Amino acid sequence: MNILEIIAKKRDKKQLNREEIDFFIKGYTCGKIADYQAASFIMAIFLNGMTEEEITNLTLAMANSGEILDLSSLNKIIVDKHSTGGVGDKVSLILLPLVASLGVPVAKMSGRGLGFTGGTVDKLESIPGYKTDIEINDFINNVRKHGISMISQTMDLAPADKKIYNLRSSISCVESMPLIASSIMSKKIASGAEKIVLDVTVGSGAFMKNQSDAEILANEMIKIGKLVNRETICILTNMNEPLGYAVGNTLEVIEAINALRGEISEDVKEVVLELGAYMIKLAGLGDNIENNKNKMIKNLENGEAYKKFLELVENQGGDISYIENTEKFEKAKYIEQVISNKKGFISSIDAEKIGKLACYLGAGRIKKEDSIQNEVGIILNKKVGDKIEIGEVLGVIHSNSNGKMIEAKKEFLDIVKISKENTKKVNTILKIM
Amino acid sequence: MNILEIIAKKRDKKQLNREEIDFFIKGYTCGKIADYQAASFIMAIFLNGMTEEEITNLTLAMANSGEILDLSSLNKIIVDKHSTGGVGDKVSLILLPLVASLGVPVAKMSGRGLGFTGGTVDKLESIPGYKTDIEINDFINNVRKHGISMISQTMDLAPADKKIYNLRSSISCVESMPLIASSIMSKKIASGAEKIVLDVTVGSGAFMKNQSDAEILANEMIKIGKLVNRETICILTNMNEPLGYAVGNTLEVIEAINALRGEISEDVKEVVLELGAYMIKLAGLGDNIENNKNKMIKNLENGEAYKKFLELVENQGGDISYIENTEKFEKAKYIEQVISNKKGFISSIDAEKIGKLACYLGAGRIKKEDSIQNEVGIILNKKVGDKIEIGEVLGVIHSNSNGKMIEAKKEFLDIVKISKENTKKVNTILKIM
Repeated sequence: MNILEIIAKKRDKKQLNREEIDFFIKGYTCGKIADYQAASFIMAIFLNGMTEEEITNLTLAMANSGEILDLSSLNKIIVDKHSTGGVGDKVSLILLPLVASLGVPVAKMSGRGLGFTGGTVDKLESIPGYKTDIEINDFINNVRKHGISMISQTMDLAPADKKIYNLRSSISCVESMPLIASSIMSKKIASGAEKIVLDVTVGSGAFMKNQSDAEILANEMIKIGKLVNRETICILTNMNEPLGYAVGNTLEVIEAINALRGEISEDVKEVVLELGAYMIKLAGLGDNIENNKNKMIKNLENGEAYKKFLELVENQGGDISYIENTEKFEKAKYIEQVISNKKGFISSIDAEKIGKLACYLGAGRIKKEDSIQNEVGIILNKKVGDKIEIGEVLGVIHSNSNGKMIEAKKEFLDIVKISKENTKKVNTILKIM
Repeated sequence: MNILEIIAKKRDKKQLNREEIDFFIKGYTCGKIADYQAASFIMAIFLNGMTEEEITNLTLAMANSGEILDLSSLNKIIVDKHSTGGVGDKVSLILLPLVASLGVPVAKMSGRGLGFTGGTVDKLESIPGYKTDIEINDFINNVRKHGISMISQTMDLAPADKKIYNLRSSISCVESMPLIASSIMSKKIASGAEKIVLDVTVGSGAFMKNQSDAEILANEMIKIGKLVNRETICILTNMNEPLGYAVGNTLEVIEAINALRGEISEDVKEVVLELGAYMIKLAGLGDNIENNKNKMIKNLENGEAYKKFLELVENQGGDISYIENTEKFEKAKYIEQVISNKKGFISSIDAEKIGKLACYLGAGRIKKEDSIQNEVGIILNKKVGDKIEIGEVLGVIHSNSNGKMIEAKKEFLDIVKISKENTKKVNTILKIM
């Protein structure tokens, strides 16, 4: 077996067997196969596709290319939640303490944000003292003792996936369904998930721009899940406008804290309840989705979810006085309102553009090495479908630079589209698969 | 403009414009574009093809990526001859002195052999003293004074082509029609050719295994030639069996010397006359192909071609006493006949296998850095269609190792297929385009 034969086989639309895929993944991970060989192979995959069997073998090979988190000592069904990324997506911060308060064990390793989408780890780290890089044993012990731990990806999980993922973005091979699906699933498998609930975001602020592509991706991942014996449920959610009202790390944490105290926006609530209800179901703690949702609503209202969040933060070394009094969070130097100069109805708030604007303010990274400013960002005052009058507040910009403030206000006014006709509210939950 | 957009365009089957192709070639030549980016781009070209316009722009961009040989000071129409490669192909050694003896100026830069096909430079260097790396000015002066000079590719011609050519073989992208055609034509343009006669070999010992592929390639090159204003004629020739009788550097030089003295095998003669007649025509020295052939036959018979060869060798520092007495050439340590154990008719002598066998004996290179043994090789005694009796000599092996001799004789006996039925002689000239 050699890499030239394997590339030629995929080039000629022949199916690769398990040994050939393993040969590529092992060789590429250890550096025996060169980047340029991987690049030509990946372009051939991009253009010629992969069969279900190939995708499954690729997923397993990538999952097995590094360490595998073993959560068997917990003796519980481990359900992982993952989102394909979005703008203003603070779902994990609310959902995971909430389901943990209902007995679903949460052992969550999250990523950092890159590009215009945020990352849960960055949001957690905006809480003073919160440690995301604790030892794996402490992580597992926290889950055992408190039912929840949320950390950054400290282990060397699926290094092959990391290498391929980075290469893909330098060779115009990002938007490949088999590669996206196997990348997500390999990381989930390596991080010890037995069952998986996936939030597949759809729209301008998401990886999948339209629902039909998102459905293909979801189907792909569900099939992989079946073949690798990891039950997978996909929930397609709208990401044409940002989720909730806040975009930016500290601002989103504050929105999440308010949500955990029961003050939760409609769209965030819908996503949290839908994902959570299926997590509870997959964890074997309740088959009825409506009942599960009701239990969750109750724990949002009675403070149980909020208490679990306080427990999580305290356990990870975070200063809970910030949670108890969000006024303590450091604020951006300049905080200014953007006022509408039109009347009508909000017809669109492009999520990608809002994400990029937040990035410009310093909330996100363009390159991996960039440092971020937790306190900057954007607060929406109105969402798509809302009525707006001239002189009313459209949103609030939080910036550490006056120059950027001026630019951002102008840009924000451009992004928020207002039409004379009443636009329909968009559905948040698009499909459950 | 950036390389990611260019890769994505080709990936999505859109046509690249001239600026985009130039951007890639310049960036890749100077190293700004990485090998892995070129690799993914080349695989996309392999799978999605290129339009004629794209191929032409690619050819010109590669030709212009380095030095360009300027032969305008000769004030003559420069006709270049090129072969897509074969086994036992000593055509240039005979053809070029022959047409030079008829007034066609020959300014020939040749390559070395790689893999199972030989290279003219290696053959020339098997003549003691012959210098293939003379200064470009001396090269041009030789052409002016003697009508002929044959050297190795000393200039940095089409470095982009070289880089892409090397990359292609490491990423399973060799057999791509647009890339093969543009590679050949870019080198011809860079080496100063105004008109081009191409020997497109077809068969097991050639790059193109069947005639329909060879015709596609020929058409591609003719079209490029038209678009870049370099009249191009393609002659498709049979390379299912080796050309002529000798395979190996010194052995082929001796066969060429004999041919120049009038003792020439039928198939070599056909190729030499056909290519030469068109070279004379393109050089503006005679429009009638049959007349041209007759003039060539005359110069083979009257010693003019041979004299021109002596002049060439002497001028390049070669010892002409070897030419005058070929017995002087160093011989291999072991020279042994292979005797037929069957009677019938030769039905096939696979050229690729003979080429590989000669390589195994030391006549060729597997890797660029390999050194070669000039004196080893194979002499065929029979060609396809010939009658053979038990006990008759099929061929002669020249080897410097006894172990290799034993293996080679066995292998040779395997390669030469004998059938009971009379097999038809194959045509040497398949098509003129």
